[in-house]
Amino acid sequence: MTAICFCLTGFWCCCHWAQPPTDSSSHKKASPDRMGIFSNPAYTTSFNHSFQSSAPCNNLGFLQKNNNLEEKISSFKERSSKDLLDNSDRDSRFRRTETDFSNLFARDLLPAKNGEEPTMQFLLEVVDILTNYVRKTFDRSTKVLDFHHPHQLLEGMEGFNLELSDQPESLEQILVDCRDTLKYGVRTGHPRFFNQLSTGLDIIGLSGEWLTSTANTNMFTYEIAPVFVLMEQLTLKKMREIIGWPNGEGDGIFSPGGAISNMYSVMIARYKFFPEVKTKGMTAAPRLVLFTSEHSHYSIKKASAALGFGTENLILLSTDERGRVIPADLEAKVIDAKARGCVPMFVNATAGSTVYGAFDPIHEIADICEKYNMWLHVDGAWGGGLLMSRKHRHKLCGVERANSVTWNPHKMMGVPLQCSAILVRERGVLSGCNSMCAGYLFQPDKQYDVSYDTGDKAIQCGRHVDIFKFWLMWKAKGTIGFEQHIDKCLDLSHYLYTKIKGREGYQMVFDGEPQHTNVCFWYLPPGIRDMPNGQEKREKLHKVAPKIKAMMMESGTTMVGYQPQGDKVNFFRMVISNPAATRSDIDFLTDEIERLGQDL
Amino acid sequence: MTAICFCLTGFWCCCHWAQPPTDSSSHKKASPDRMGIFSNPAYTTSFNHSFQSSAPCNNLGFLQKNNNLEEKISSFKERSSKDLLDNSDRDSRFRRTETDFSNLFARDLLPAKNGEEPTMQFLLEVVDILTNYVRKTFDRSTKVLDFHHPHQLLEGMEGFNLELSDQPESLEQILVDCRDTLKYGVRTGHPRFFNQLSTGLDIIGLSGEWLTSTANTNMFTYEIAPVFVLMEQLTLKKMREIIGWPNGEGDGIFSPGGAISNMYSVMIARYKFFPEVKTKGMTAAPRLVLFTSEHSHYSIKKASAALGFGTENLILLSTDERGRVIPADLEAKVIDAKARGCVPMFVNATAGSTVYGAFDPIHEIADICEKYNMWLHVDGAWGGGLLMSRKHRHKLCGVERANSVTWNPHKMMGVPLQCSAILVRERGVLSGCNSMCAGYLFQPDKQYDVSYDTGDKAIQCGRHVDIFKFWLMWKAKGTIGFEQHIDKCLDLSHYLYTKIKGREGYQMVFDGEPQHTNVCFWYLPPGIRDMPNGQEKREKLHKVAPKIKAMMMESGTTMVGYQPQGDKVNFFRMVISNPAATRSDIDFLTDEIERLGQDL
Repeated sequence: MTAICFCLTGFWCCCHWAQPPTDSSSHKKASPDRMGIFSNPAYTTSFNHSFQSSAPCNNLGFLQKNNNLEEKISSFKERSSKDLLDNSDRDSRFRRTETDFSNLFARDLLPAKNGEEPTMQFLLEVVDILTNYVRKTFDRSTKVLDFHHPHQLLEGMEGFNLELSDQPESLEQILVDCRDTLKYGVRTGHPRFFNQLSTGLDIIGLSGEWLTSTANTNMFTYEIAPVFVLMEQLTLKKMREIIGWPNGEGDGIFSPGGAISNMYSVMIARYKFFPEVKTKGMTAAPRLVLFTSEHSHYSIKKASAALGFGTENLILLSTDERGRVIPADLEAKVIDAKARGCVPMFVNATAGSTVYGAFDPIHEIADICEKYNMWLHVDGAWGGGLLMSRKHRHKLCGVERANSVTWNPHKMMGVPLQCSAILVRERGVLSGCNSMCAGYLFQPDKQYDVSYDTGDKAIQCGRHVDIFKFWLMWKAKGTIGFEQHIDKCLDLSHYLYTKIKGREGYQMVFDGEPQHTNVCFWYLPPGIRDMPNGQEKREKLHKVAPKIKAMMMESGTTMVGYQPQGDKVNFFRMVISNPAATRSDIDFLTDEIERLGQDL
Repeated sequence: MTAICFCLTGFWCCCHWAQPPTDSSSHKKASPDRMGIFSNPAYTTSFNHSFQSSAPCNNLGFLQKNNNLEEKISSFKERSSKDLLDNSDRDSRFRRTETDFSNLFARDLLPAKNGEEPTMQFLLEVVDILTNYVRKTFDRSTKVLDFHHPHQLLEGMEGFNLELSDQPESLEQILVDCRDTLKYGVRTGHPRFFNQLSTGLDIIGLSGEWLTSTANTNMFTYEIAPVFVLMEQLTLKKMREIIGWPNGEGDGIFSPGGAISNMYSVMIARYKFFPEVKTKGMTAAPRLVLFTSEHSHYSIKKASAALGFGTENLILLSTDERGRVIPADLEAKVIDAKARGCVPMFVNATAGSTVYGAFDPIHEIADICEKYNMWLHVDGAWGGGLLMSRKHRHKLCGVERANSVTWNPHKMMGVPLQCSAILVRERGVLSGCNSMCAGYLFQPDKQYDVSYDTGDKAIQCGRHVDIFKFWLMWKAKGTIGFEQHIDKCLDLSHYLYTKIKGREGYQMVFDGEPQHTNVCFWYLPPGIRDMPNGQEKREKLHKVAPKIKAMMMESGTTMVGYQPQGDKVNFFRMVISNPAATRSDIDFLTDEIERLGQDL
């Protein structure tokens, strides 16, 4: 059977199983600088000795350090001030040495014997690459991106080959690959990157992610993520307090993005009204219908397909010209659905729509939900962050009446991707909906309070630690820091709006001050401006934004999104969530649009 | 309305909005060592000068470095060998200085003016914490965990307070928080951590995650993740080749864990057979039934609940005493379901069950799926890694006949969490099932080949970059490196099995050599060994594993899982996926079990 199996799959048969280079014990220093790592001689004392030495690693000064705070403080107290000056045996922790990585391989790193020194040197080299990237990200003289077409990258840039092979590459090549991966990527933290709702590179958040990766654990049980599980609980409670639910009561969980958070909301609503669906399936329920704005995020539609409602049972609500749901339209459609024998079950109100940044009127929608006994979900993936601002949180007025709320700190609050929360007002429905009581994970006879094992509430089993970076940022900035960031972004978008609303060549997509940082506009090149309105002008204008965007990407100077919406031809959607952006960057963007669009 | 809104939510009203400390410009050096950071004087030259200087940052030697490879190489060529010795102005990149973080705040870091130096110093300090943690992780004299109950951590350990506040904390406190978060966590990479299917701390994978966090982008479009999108495509193709699908054709995507990957498989199967469900919902389909082993992962049950099938329509298959599905039972249950008017649609075959590590007989199940026109999914979340081993891949014989496969590199292949792939044999069904064509993301008029915008295939919108660490590990180890790791883990589990199968006080849960690294056994303390079989012995034995586990956690020496299964009382499930584990660690585990269980 085995032999047949190999032939059928055909994979191993055709591989060349040559032995990989094995002389990793002879760590030649032939070309220590082929990676361009120039070291101060003072830093380069111990590596070769220690690495070739058979003495236990912890005999080396490099390894005697213990970074435990208490020990350090006590050690500090014991030292005389003379000692402080004579610290030749200290801080060898950061002794970056002339290491030749061309003869080192992954197998030479920890847990390999004597792997500690090369591991530390390799990690420091990676950190050097990353800190350089961080520096350049904030440097306006650096490009936002160095664009290449897929076929170019697939063919292989010089020294950068994406193909995987059977044999290992040297650590030198791995470091080159790391540099190249960043080189051909997009600097989403660059002050002139405006392309998505998630922008910026928060240093505290970044540190939090580095720590999370190093801890490499899983949120499903307190047993293996005690600190992170508690941080999640406390942070979710804080978010519920800010939403306005009494005493922050309720439930919630961090999920892999706003689309999954929105999917949770539909699942929970169904469980609340028709718990038998969990065991018997959708056929046990009447024909259920869901409502959402025609401007809402497509994840509600994805959820209605995935969860077995069907996209036709998701009814799209009309909006006013600013993209806000018209409550009367909701009520009319609820009445109509009931008349057709359907059961209206769920309404999604968007707080900060993707394109217009519109906030649906939550109070009016909540009134209708109460009247017809429907679940009210507020999708605040984009707009939820405004709850942190005393000046702007009124735009979510009524959110405390929602049954569930999606709120993505990875968008307006600048937390690194991914960080999205689904928050639920009623305790118990989230677990009721999802728990399956797997015995191998959620043993009831553990020695600690197992109510802290939160994994069974999730549709996932293993769950990435998304909380730490957010918790750490909150600690480091305080609530007030988030507020300042949000207020600043909205001020900047006000600056852009004020600048272009009457400016020649610009036309706003909707009238009035935007509610969020989304500023939607057409840029009309001189050759189009004076054309009479009509199909020809529309067709020409439709092509302007894609052309300008393509030129922006080719030149790498800035990035901004565009899209059509309904019967409106392609327009730019400017969004500001980047803490690095300033008025000068806004000016740069409009200058660039005008420069590139001049001759279109 | 605004005022009412504030009162209702009650949050902002009761906050004390005192101004945070603002004297961050006076970076006193009063207590440079309160963080215990002792620096070599040679390293501490420029910080205070540069930070207080109003000169442009890039006038400083610290900032002149450019880590771009080509530039370095060319720079290297231009230098004379004399120059190489006289490098006093070089490598200041790693000049870690005596920085007093007690007066620095997040707002002083980039993008703040003059924020570069404190940013670099802060990041290096974080890296110091992390590299120390990495070192200790591999040090057997370090505990696996320092256990505390939830209430203890919630009450606040000395200097470690989980509560969030309105005002910012100093960077000094943030660094303390980082240390404490690691201190009170669990070292999942420790050589004696055997608690989960995902263990170990791969240095290349860790570097990959650090880079991923720094790039901080999103997989939905080629536009903002060009390199990562291509890496994902190439890696998925390679995985499909290894599965044995001709030319690696097909489709797939990385998802946030095996549970979601399994959920995808059910969704895709439904779309393949009943595409109208996407638009019309489950009521458009006949009563569909799904099949999976009673030993399979609970995510199949979660998916059947979430997607609207209902858990009662998931039919559990009987297994042999080794936990493998009995094909005849599947066929009998298919026939029975059809007789009841149901439509058998989907069969999950587990390749490596969670508890026993059992591999269902895929060929026999595939025959039945073909005969009755059912979708065959192979859940290889845990066992998929064995495909990389010429010695062990026969256990998945027949996997090439599957319609879809879940395969989690974050389990048996040692990739950091999260990294899970759903692979699909037929091209088109994944996109067909999930695409909603959101205009603001997936514009058809982009300048590049938009078939590389893969986001619309996902149930997510934003999607975390899970590919890079895996791609980088594959580059660094080669296929052969993964094979060696897997073979080594299976050798170790063979060692454990051989050691305890006839040993006094041990009893195996099932007979014969385990198929995967799962070794399931009871330990019977002396006081229980000679009791006559019966209810009393069962009850006593049921309490042994939880008690030993609790003592292990309290002492922090090692961690291993336990659970009941069916009518079997609590037993230990030992699994080995940790590259750091050796025979001595296996010996340590059994010694520890015997030591702790001696008097139970």
